[in-house]
Amino acid sequence: MKILVIGGGGMVGAKLIGRLAKDGQLGHAQITSLVRQDIVLPAPPPTAVFPIDTHLGDLSVPGEAEKLIALRPDIIFHLAAIVSGEAEADFEKGYRINLDGTRYLFEAIRKAGNGYRPRLVFTSSIAVFGAPFPEAIPDDYFTTPLTSYGTQKAICELLLTDYTRRGFFDGIGLRFPTICVRPGKPNLAASGFFSNIIREPLAGHEAVLPVSEDVRHWHASPRAATGFLLHAATMTLGELGNRRNVTLPGVSCTVGEQIQALRKVAGDRVVARIRREPNETIIRIVSGWPRNFEARRGRELGFTAETSFEEIIRVHVADELDGKIA
Amino acid sequence: MKILVIGGGGMVGAKLIGRLAKDGQLGHAQITSLVRQDIVLPAPPPTAVFPIDTHLGDLSVPGEAEKLIALRPDIIFHLAAIVSGEAEADFEKGYRINLDGTRYLFEAIRKAGNGYRPRLVFTSSIAVFGAPFPEAIPDDYFTTPLTSYGTQKAICELLLTDYTRRGFFDGIGLRFPTICVRPGKPNLAASGFFSNIIREPLAGHEAVLPVSEDVRHWHASPRAATGFLLHAATMTLGELGNRRNVTLPGVSCTVGEQIQALRKVAGDRVVARIRREPNETIIRIVSGWPRNFEARRGRELGFTAETSFEEIIRVHVADELDGKIA
Repeated sequence: MKILVIGGGGMVGAKLIGRLAKDGQLGHAQITSLVRQDIVLPAPPPTAVFPIDTHLGDLSVPGEAEKLIALRPDIIFHLAAIVSGEAEADFEKGYRINLDGTRYLFEAIRKAGNGYRPRLVFTSSIAVFGAPFPEAIPDDYFTTPLTSYGTQKAICELLLTDYTRRGFFDGIGLRFPTICVRPGKPNLAASGFFSNIIREPLAGHEAVLPVSEDVRHWHASPRAATGFLLHAATMTLGELGNRRNVTLPGVSCTVGEQIQALRKVAGDRVVARIRREPNETIIRIVSGWPRNFEARRGRELGFTAETSFEEIIRVHVADELDGKIA
Repeated sequence: MKILVIGGGGMVGAKLIGRLAKDGQLGHAQITSLVRQDIVLPAPPPTAVFPIDTHLGDLSVPGEAEKLIALRPDIIFHLAAIVSGEAEADFEKGYRINLDGTRYLFEAIRKAGNGYRPRLVFTSSIAVFGAPFPEAIPDDYFTTPLTSYGTQKAICELLLTDYTRRGFFDGIGLRFPTICVRPGKPNLAASGFFSNIIREPLAGHEAVLPVSEDVRHWHASPRAATGFLLHAATMTLGELGNRRNVTLPGVSCTVGEQIQALRKVAGDRVVARIRREPNETIIRIVSGWPRNFEARRGRELGFTAETSFEEIIRVHVADELDGKIA
């Protein structure tokens, strides 16, 4: 089985490749080769029993997708995107990379012909939804994105379904929850604080909380994210019919509940490292974000996430901190 | 006020242009000029107190949209599309005309700059919805099209909202009901029979009914279609917020109820001209189509359609037959 990971340089892509390298197989199939693609990739790739090739490039450059598809991968993970903030700041770049790049990929697969029909796993986002919405968004709720990023993801979801219906590939789109606790340094993304207020205190550093404790959001761990991708790559997709985009399960909790969970896992001393500093811009942005989902279909299809924020923190402590709290 | 009608050669476009020519104004504003654009257009244009220019061309050819936008129209009606059957038969042509053509138009407006921000009225379709759905589809129901045409319309709806949110134009997308009774000759569209079984008997001809009488569908007259467009061009759009696509009101009725209404308007002699000839292909296609909508928001926004199928037939007799039944 040949695997292609487009956008393999991101946090989720790197975790996925690491897991595949460790397992040596995907479902019951031996992996024979893997190509990781991105604009920038850490060198060297992880050690694996199968060869891992590195392909540096930009999917939104015409011809790039054809080069990747010439290898006829059996499974394609398409994780490449510029993030919400950048797609909002640079209109043209957002459409070029998040929409045109994806369309080039889909077209390269369609034009390959000769019965080539790979599994395609696409990472979408809960950003396809925009306020106002009900407390828990049902699976049949409409997509009214409030960002260009969310618009681009919603468009790619529609294309994925049509290309699948036409038989060009066997696609599934995954609406990821906010991935939390993100490892690495704090960043300036508006959603960054959801991870910062857990990761930084656990590492002995101060973190800033820019919103009130009653803000509710939808989370899953990086480990759950890898699990979503592996399940999507191996499950039977026929039961999806022509509704190929799935809102994934997650944990809906308030910032206050996040902090309570942190206290339970790490104690008052760690929680005391959170400093409250309200930021009106972030408060406004976050007010338009989804808070909770029914995600019934995602669960019925066998996708699993954590069931409490405490569990999400324990996954972070185990996977990123070797079980050690500062 | 300068008006541009893209796709002015179709049935709805021609009716719209005829109405504007007759009125001489749109809302309270005098029309100073109108450009009608299409691949083919009937010559000459209708008589009007303002000049009507004819622009033959294909919106999906790069550069075409820029030429049209160079005129800086205040109101743009974008009605151009290839229909469902053709977009399904020719994948590339469907995406080129229904998606790329629309995107070229939106981009040409965005790049015009200098504060240019026209009103843009886009005709979408109930084909953005795909079975299974509830008996009456609510306004917040998700778009899961089952055709490439419906996919292209749903994508254009998303683009329209994002371009509007960004301030590039002031857009509204209208999900038209099936327009019935369509004037003209019977055609091979799967939906053609909804009109054929009314228009042909009223004109003294036989018509074929390929489905059973319990098939339910969603209709509005050509006169209502013109009304939708004029209302969308003149209403205040601010109250739409970031939800710029509207499911329009219509009449939900079964084929049996259509025939009953025909009997009431024209008697048994006319109804006897309907011949039942079940067609399994059409029965299958139609089974995936929407039957009924709540369309609460469309009504609240001031859009109006007929309230019974009898009224739809009487509109046809008045507008197309000069009140005469054969």
